[in-house]
This record gives sequence, C-alpha cells and structure tokens, in this order.
Amino acid sequence: MMRLPEFSDVKAAYDRIEGFAVRTPLLENTVLNERVGGRVLIKPEILQRTGSFKFRGAFSALRKFSGDQKRGGVVAFSSGNHAQGIAEAARILKMPALVVMPSDAPSIKKKGVIDRGGEIIEYLREDNNREALAAELCKQRGATLIPAFEHSDVISGQGTAGLEAFSDLEARDITADQLVCCLGGGGLMAGIGLSRDALSPNTRLIGAEPTRFDDHKRSLRSGVREVNASMSGSICDAIMAPSPGEMTWAINRGRLSDVALCSDDDVKNAMRFAFEILKLIVEPGGAAALACILNGSVETKDRTSVVVLTGGNVDPALFASVIEAR
Amino acid sequence: MMRLPEFSDVKAAYDRIEGFAVRTPLLENTVLNERVGGRVLIKPEILQRTGSFKFRGAFSALRKFSGDQKRGGVVAFSSGNHAQGIAEAARILKMPALVVMPSDAPSIKKKGVIDRGGEIIEYLREDNNREALAAELCKQRGATLIPAFEHSDVISGQGTAGLEAFSDLEARDITADQLVCCLGGGGLMAGIGLSRDALSPNTRLIGAEPTRFDDHKRSLRSGVREVNASMSGSICDAIMAPSPGEMTWAINRGRLSDVALCSDDDVKNAMRFAFEILKLIVEPGGAAALACILNGSVETKDRTSVVVLTGGNVDPALFASVIEAR
Repeated sequence: MMRLPEFSDVKAAYDRIEGFAVRTPLLENTVLNERVGGRVLIKPEILQRTGSFKFRGAFSALRKFSGDQKRGGVVAFSSGNHAQGIAEAARILKMPALVVMPSDAPSIKKKGVIDRGGEIIEYLREDNNREALAAELCKQRGATLIPAFEHSDVISGQGTAGLEAFSDLEARDITADQLVCCLGGGGLMAGIGLSRDALSPNTRLIGAEPTRFDDHKRSLRSGVREVNASMSGSICDAIMAPSPGEMTWAINRGRLSDVALCSDDDVKNAMRFAFEILKLIVEPGGAAALACILNGSVETKDRTSVVVLTGGNVDPALFASVIEAR
Repeated sequence: MMRLPEFSDVKAAYDRIEGFAVRTPLLENTVLNERVGGRVLIKPEILQRTGSFKFRGAFSALRKFSGDQKRGGVVAFSSGNHAQGIAEAARILKMPALVVMPSDAPSIKKKGVIDRGGEIIEYLREDNNREALAAELCKQRGATLIPAFEHSDVISGQGTAGLEAFSDLEARDITADQLVCCLGGGGLMAGIGLSRDALSPNTRLIGAEPTRFDDHKRSLRSGVREVNASMSGSICDAIMAPSPGEMTWAINRGRLSDVALCSDDDVKNAMRFAFEILKLIVEPGGAAALACILNGSVETKDRTSVVVLTGGNVDPALFASVIEAR
C-alpha cells in the first residue's frame, strides 16, 4: 500500500490543479431548504471540468509525471468519469491516455474520452480482471497506471473539493453540521475527510450508497472491508465499486459517522428534483447524496448540510426517461 | 411614462433583494471557451430563486409596497417567469398575488405559481387585451399592477444581475468585451445597461432574439419601436413580447451595440449543449444568448463575453425531445 496522504498533500494538490480545475461554487436553493427543513449548500462538481470531480484527482496525479512517464503515457480503468478526467488531464499535459472501461458505460462518458483524444478498451463489467488487464497494458506500453482511487495523488486531488468547500464556508462564517457525499471506491470522501480534519473538524461526514451497493455501510458496522454481492444492478453506474479501497478505507473508517442508503427510485426522484428545482443535470451516481437527504435517511432538520453532486454525465435517453416518468 | 431608473436605483434595488435573491456566480467552461475561441463567463440566472432572473424585479417592486398596497395584493400579466417571480415575492411578503398567463404557458411555470400560493387567470396568447384584463382585475380587487418590464422598480431589480456580474468581474480583474442577453420586453437588458454604464463602460451590450421576434433588431435599425408580426410561433415562450417596452427602449436604444438572431434549431442546439457540456437546464428563451454565440452570429474569437442564461423553467416533455433529437 502506498503512503497514505495527509492534508498537506491536499494543499499541494490544490496548487497543482489551480487554474486548470474549476473552483466550483457553493449553491443554495430555497425550495430545497424548505423541503428538508434545514440549510443545504450544494457543491456542484457537475460543473467541474469533464462534468465530474474526477478531473481533480487525475490532474493531480498526472501533473507529477516525469518526462519518461509522460512519454509512456497513462493507463486507467474506470466506469467513465475517472476515464474522462484522465483523458482530459493527459490532453492538457500532452501525453497518451488509454482507459479500460466497462462495455455498458454511458455513451456520453465514452464520447467524453474519445473527444479528448483518449483511447478506450472495453471489458465486461462482471469480469473482475480489469486490474490485470490494465497492468498488462502498462507493461506493453511502458505506461503508468493511475487507479481511480487507490493512489495518494488521486485522493489528495479529490480532497481539493473539500478544501474549497470548507474554505468557502469559513469565509462566509458558516459551519456545516454534516457533509453528505456518495461512496464508490471512497476516494472523494477520503480526500474530503483530510480537509475536514484540518478545516472543519466539527462537520460530520455521511456517506451515501445505493441499497444494493452498501459495502461501506456494512464495512463500517463490521470493521472490515465488505464486498458487494454483484457488480451490476444499480442505476448508479459511477459508484458500483466492488468494495471500499484499501487506502481509502484506511482513511475513511475513522472519519465516517454514518452511511445512508438510497434506492434507484430515490435516485430518480433526486434527478427529477434537480431538473425541476435546481436546474442542474445530475447523473444517477452523482445524485445519491441528494437522494439520501430527500428520502429522509439523512437527518437534515435545523442542520446545515453540504451535499456534493459528484457528476453530471448521463445519457440523454436515460435522463429523458427519468424526468418524464411521474 | 414613469420616471426612468438610474444606476442609483439599481443599487437601492440590490439592497432590497439582498438576502432574498440568490447572488448567482459566474461560471466558466473550458469546452465552451475552446468551441468559440474566446473566453465566456456565464451568468446562470437559472439558479435564481424561481428559476429565472424575474424574481429580482418582482421582489424589488413588491418590497416597496405600502401596508395598503399589501392588503390589496399584486396583479401581473406574464408568460410565466415574471408570474413565478411575483408569486414568490408575494408569498415572502405575505400578500395575495394574481397573475394573468397565456393558456399555452409551460406547465412547470403554472405549477411554479400555484405551488407558491399564486392565483392564475388564463388568456389566449394571440389576444392583445391582457393589459386591459389586468387593469380591470386591479380595479375589482384594489390591487396594484406590476408589469413585467415597464416599471422603474422592476427594471432596477433586473439590473442587479448586471451589478453582480460586473462587480464580480472587477473583483477578478476581468474586463468583458461584451455581454450577450436575450431581449423580450427588454427589462433585463435595460437594468444591465444602467449597471454597465457605471461599472464597466467599455463592455458592449448585444441582444439576442429569435429570428421571427426581431423587434429590437429592427427597432435599432429604424430608430422607432417596431412590432412583431405575430405573438406566437417561436419555441422561446419567455421572450415573445410584442415590441420593445416604452421605458425599456428609452434606456436600451442608446446602449445596445447590436442584436443577434437565432432560429428555433439554434436554440435547441444550445439547450443540448447546456445539457451535455454545461450540465445546466436552460429553457428555450433562456438559451437565446448562448444560441447566438454558438451559431456564430455574435463574434467571440479572442474576446471575453458574458452570456446570461435567463431562465430554466422548461417542461420535461419538451426538454426530453430536445436532448434526444440528434
């Protein structure tokens, strides 16, 4: 296992991504506040470069590549948002990027990789050998693997979202009681946790997971990294990781206060709410945290909550079916 | 004609709406910048309370009501966004609100009025007697009419969007070469024009209109207020005003540098771009300015442009059909 990152690494990552990543604002909506009986500040990572927070970690990692590493390029495996972050970071830094993606990844995510000059190799989501495949490709090409969350520079990069949110809150003299963020591999939450410790120690961290991908929730209860029974079967394509990462779990286990769950229907309701009221496009996985405050599984009454909308890369046909169903 | 507002009125309006209206951020997207070969800063009034800038003017006006006026309440006629702004402002300030809306107004806009406790009377869009109807209703109820743009406090309120944008640009040391904003009655542009004069005198103001509702463009050429041939027939329900307002035109005529045009297809392309790349929900009229920079009718190369996305209240069925068509 790599060295675990600390808050100083998050600050260093911020210096690397500044001017390249979007410093996303905190948004507030009175209808949402009234609905949940508390104050909600939205961190819209859908507005991040490539439409998800993943660009932060990808650029944070690739910016540290040596000249030799750049020539070999980068390999990543990803359900689609890390893939786009890697492709965009590689395009900016002028190196080749190859991503291994599940064949059922949303078209908009595949297109996002190709439009940015990345190369895609597809695999079947149910296969568990994507790591082996990626390792083999690295060997063939002399490339460097940048995993989606098990990497110090990636976790530090994602943590910049937390650094921004907590700094902006402090500047406005607001203390958040809790921050709600979805959990796939746990990289974003881990990075946010490092920022939380340093900048807003009284803010509780609450994870959000799809009901059938409750590996973090079960892990928090059992104390060991639990594995999901399946690798498919949720609308939340972005957060169907097999289990908490080793590094991310080492960070998250002592920092997560709780994990809330949401069904596919809860997620669709949240996407519809975001369409109708927030006027934001949120993809299923990116809507999980919002779903967990709207379905009542996270207590929000008289509290100030930060909710991270992690991504907005959703295919038109799926989005249309969600907003039209009522 | 009422007294024309000045920049001091915009500042006073800002004091009235502060803490009630959303101070919307300026957003930037690298794909958009690359696409148009320049820098674009988006003022997303879709994130404003009620999903459009109209809340600014409505609250600015209603906040000045006397106790007597509050008891009688407010009457407005509106294609839907002013209606929602009025209903929300009236709800906050605890007075009755009655709005006269075209029968073909989007359902989401009617719902937005009713959900906020407003009362709706419908009329046929092709009828031109909505002013007479509204005046009659005011008399019956002892209510005060707040028109959608021909009112000093409304124009001043809309101008706060410009005040915010130009102040935020100055704080970031950016000078915009031009600001592009759609034109219906011209109230928003008029208010922005007052702010522009005071805060960013070198920024050119460019209007955006649907091809068949080019009344401002023709008025700018002829020097007199031209009238549109029809009151229907564009996808842009929010900006199909019959002609420039008398007050708004008195302000806009000397300040507008040009007016660009966009077709319904251009507007749909812009909405699709906002979905795919910006991750923002924009209604047809609200997308007109974006449409005019994407269709090339506004020169953007090597320029810094502010583009106002004025509203995001679009029915799911229409939005679905737009994003799925390709």
